[in-house]
Amino acid sequence: METLTQIRVRYVETDAMGIVHHASYVAWLELGRTELLRGSGQSYREWEQAGVHLTVGEVHLKYRAPAYFDDLVDVHTRVTEAGRRRVGFAYRIERDGVLLAEASTVHLVTGANGRARVLPDEFLDLLKG
Amino acid sequence: METLTQIRVRYVETDAMGIVHHASYVAWLELGRTELLRGSGQSYREWEQAGVHLTVGEVHLKYRAPAYFDDLVDVHTRVTEAGRRRVGFAYRIERDGVLLAEASTVHLVTGANGRARVLPDEFLDLLKG
Amino acid sequence: METLTQIRVRYVETDAMGIVHHASYVAWLELGRTELLRGSGQSYREWEQAGVHLTVGEVHLKYRAPAYFDDLVDVHTRVTEAGRRRVGFAYRIERDGVLLAEASTVHLVTGANGRARVLPDEFLDLLKG
Amino acid sequence: METLTQIRVRYVETDAMGIVHHASYVAWLELGRTELLRGSGQSYREWEQAGVHLTVGEVHLKYRAPAYFDDLVDVHTRVTEAGRRRVGFAYRIERDGVLLAEASTVHLVTGANGRARVLPDEFLDLLKG
Repeated sequence: METLTQIRVRYVETDAMGIVHHASYVAWLELGRTELLRGSGQSYREWEQAGVHLTVGEVHLKYRAPAYFDDLVDVHTRVTEAGRRRVGFAYRIERDGVLLAEASTVHLVTGANGRARVLPDEFLDLLKG
Repeated sequence: METLTQIRVRYVETDAMGIVHHASYVAWLELGRTELLRGSGQSYREWEQAGVHLTVGEVHLKYRAPAYFDDLVDVHTRVTEAGRRRVGFAYRIERDGVLLAEASTVHLVTGANGRARVLPDEFLDLLKG
Repeated sequence: METLTQIRVRYVETDAMGIVHHASYVAWLELGRTELLRGSGQSYREWEQAGVHLTVGEVHLKYRAPAYFDDLVDVHTRVTEAGRRRVGFAYRIERDGVLLAEASTVHLVTGANGRARVLPDEFLDLLKG
Repeated sequence: METLTQIRVRYVETDAMGIVHHASYVAWLELGRTELLRGSGQSYREWEQAGVHLTVGEVHLKYRAPAYFDDLVDVHTRVTEAGRRRVGFAYRIERDGVLLAEASTVHLVTGANGRARVLPDEFLDLLKG
């Protein structure tokens, strides 16, 4: 399962170098996996309403080329790990087919209180597509 | 009661104009009133633990001169209104005595659920200094 | 001239109250006027490439009802003032027709260096629709 | 060379989980290395004025325990690589001695235009302490 999310770069996401600040990409990854989950059949809002949270455990980002204000960037998101306790995603961020950044995130399955819990089969099946 | 809060400008707070983005100031106002409350005797964390929230109802900002990365800016914060249902603050943001921005915010007294409540006397007295 | 911009609320835009943080709206206003300018015939990127910047002079926001993660909010943006030295916009932010916030911004026409300049007729005409 | 930077957690840095959003840490890393450079003898603002930029190439973050609004967090920053073309930093983020996150970043030495350049000896010596 891979999802494409298009994001218009905001002015607030740029910095004094004239390019997108590296922290802005972290929010884009979040958007990418939010849209992947929506596409899988249950939005992340519905996950949370069911008491299932994907708490971020790791973020890895490699920047390949700068992005600029008003660019339309493509976030390609896919599931790399779908376990009862851990879920992983990988991302490619591109503009017009040019790679801007590669990333991965690892998430722990928790309740609203942040404590580890087991991912219900219903959600696991959605991730496995 | 007036409080001075010093803030070191972060690179992430700048934008492609080479100056601090106008949205960054909103977070500085928040820091200003957080430190004012701490100085008054009860931190805002303690307000929240007591079930008292100052939900933001209005923000007004006038920008007078740009701020830059690594500037050390002074946020002067004071209480302009201390009522049982509404609280107001005014702010002057300066760098080396030069005015960068003026601002004011209005807050509604609410519980954690966002519903209006009455400000307990204990907190009202702190605001009135 | 009025433009409608739809924005999906990001998780990063929420805060510990469980609602969208008040500073997040400032970025939404920026998106609203960016899309208004694009619709008028010249994107703001093109404005900047022509050496014309709309430096933010004032921001006023009144919050009417909270927004939440994953909401699809509508930003209605219109021009309220189109002068050679000053430009103004007004905004209504809604979700399913419910008013969440009202706002206005005032901008000074400047060059890339932040110094005041006169808005070229070509851009003035676009703003006047 | 290791530098300790203390940061007061801002409300805007939290999210609807009630904890600090994972993207907020990226800005803290930036503050950590900014203060490390200042302590080394030349602030990053001075680096930029000399035409030397440390463009972010990689960010790696592992989250160990949540941070909360108003926490006073310690960012311990050290240089892990000081080359003519690449510079690396490692970070430990703690609260009262409890590890909240570990991180590393890799930077490319560039000019203001983002093109690779060689790090002048004067700056290299500062990094090597």
